[in-house]
Amino acid sequence: MDKKTVGLSDTFKAKTSPKSFTKNPIKGTNFTIAISSAKGGVGKSTFAMNFALALKAAGSKVGILDADIYGPSLPKMMSINEKPKSEDGKSLTPINQYGIQCMSIGFLVDEETPMIWRGPMVTSAIKTFTQKVLWDNLDFIIVDMPPGTGDTQLTFAQEIKVDGVIIVSTPQEIALSDVKRGIRMFDKLKVPILGLVDNMSFFETDDGKNYNIFGEGGVEKLAVDYKKEFLGKIPINIDLRIAADTGKPLVEKNPDHKISKIFIEIAKKIKGSFL
Amino acid sequence: MDKKTVGLSDTFKAKTSPKSFTKNPIKGTNFTIAISSAKGGVGKSTFAMNFALALKAAGSKVGILDADIYGPSLPKMMSINEKPKSEDGKSLTPINQYGIQCMSIGFLVDEETPMIWRGPMVTSAIKTFTQKVLWDNLDFIIVDMPPGTGDTQLTFAQEIKVDGVIIVSTPQEIALSDVKRGIRMFDKLKVPILGLVDNMSFFETDDGKNYNIFGEGGVEKLAVDYKKEFLGKIPINIDLRIAADTGKPLVEKNPDHKISKIFIEIAKKIKGSFL
Repeated sequence: MDKKTVGLSDTFKAKTSPKSFTKNPIKGTNFTIAISSAKGGVGKSTFAMNFALALKAAGSKVGILDADIYGPSLPKMMSINEKPKSEDGKSLTPINQYGIQCMSIGFLVDEETPMIWRGPMVTSAIKTFTQKVLWDNLDFIIVDMPPGTGDTQLTFAQEIKVDGVIIVSTPQEIALSDVKRGIRMFDKLKVPILGLVDNMSFFETDDGKNYNIFGEGGVEKLAVDYKKEFLGKIPINIDLRIAADTGKPLVEKNPDHKISKIFIEIAKKIKGSFL
Repeated sequence: MDKKTVGLSDTFKAKTSPKSFTKNPIKGTNFTIAISSAKGGVGKSTFAMNFALALKAAGSKVGILDADIYGPSLPKMMSINEKPKSEDGKSLTPINQYGIQCMSIGFLVDEETPMIWRGPMVTSAIKTFTQKVLWDNLDFIIVDMPPGTGDTQLTFAQEIKVDGVIIVSTPQEIALSDVKRGIRMFDKLKVPILGLVDNMSFFETDDGKNYNIFGEGGVEKLAVDYKKEFLGKIPINIDLRIAADTGKPLVEKNPDHKISKIFIEIAKKIKGSFL
């Protein structure tokens, strides 16, 4: 029998290879840092919000752009229930909360409305957020990326000057496959990777016993294998989750919490590499 | 000062409203059940694999279509390291593992290759998987959906006869916002929702103490609010995670495990509603 093993055709592969684009910085901002994870649900948004607040605590002027069009987390995590204003009907003024300039698709629709959009609509929303928002004199804009390696990632990598990416992952095997794909994507698109974070690293019970619920050490090992910086471990912590669920991230609510200190440490490290 | 509050324009809204399409069943299959979660990382793939194996244990002939183009989990979770064969160079033969017919984009590329694709490419891959795969006389095909409410969801809802969706979520507030959007999407696209599952419901330590790491009761309450069936709770379980990470889902590895029994219970319930 004449059986063939099939892969992707060359035409198909050719379509996926990157072209050259002009990369513009986001207006009103100095440095753009994307928080990414190829896999969803690893705590990327919780990381992004707390990291932004930690940069603020370290003395920087910071904005957060929620680029997750299908699953915006910013409005809830930062307790924002208002619509952004527009002076001229074309541009959007970001909303200030806890000293951070914020923008999210979640400000424009109510919480329960799904964005049932195909890719080109998502790209158009991302362009609005990067070109039409009046970010005011920011040192850093933190971009909370959606999971995956699709339209949003491509738009950022090709058309926007991204100064660095932090990749967040949980340590289980299945998540690490996605991280490898993420690293390959950013390397291929020539976006610098600032480092990897091991999130939900372990769970500590009230009596001090640790459980490696999602496995152990995987992210750090991967950082070594791919020659990327390892930025640190953040354990599973109920205070951290509750703070995010109730709209005031832990770093803002309690900067002296042991978990907040980890975020502040990472923020200082990153800030130091730029300024 | 003349400030305007801005939302989405009517033109923009009109573009997002659903049109009519012809919905074709996936060839070679009787019933199509999609496993969905608007948010990623809630254990959707782990649920999909174990649920498929539980349906098999309940006597059905089952296939799994991994529709998560950006983050395929099937190859690793089901230990499949081969490329699918093609008799005629056009169609693809699914790969049999543990008595389940399987197909994933992960079979066609190596583990570390990211699919850096815009939406239309994703849609084209989904069409190949639903039209060109030689599924053989299946009672059920389980579709492991990607997170979000985008191209893949739209393609399935508009062009494929989906007989029902199971929505998986963790109980924390931030995940529940995404679930609400998911419910609204499927209701809007007229895809029946079979029920909601509360995953990573709680964590039980060795000495029997329970921790509601991700909150408590949220999914069940949401099922009541939206008049959807509540299918059950699945706790965080290290055996379940290890089984997925090592390529033999728990239901197959140890059908008598207390967690496997929950899957089998849910599978029987769903099977009973179709056959």
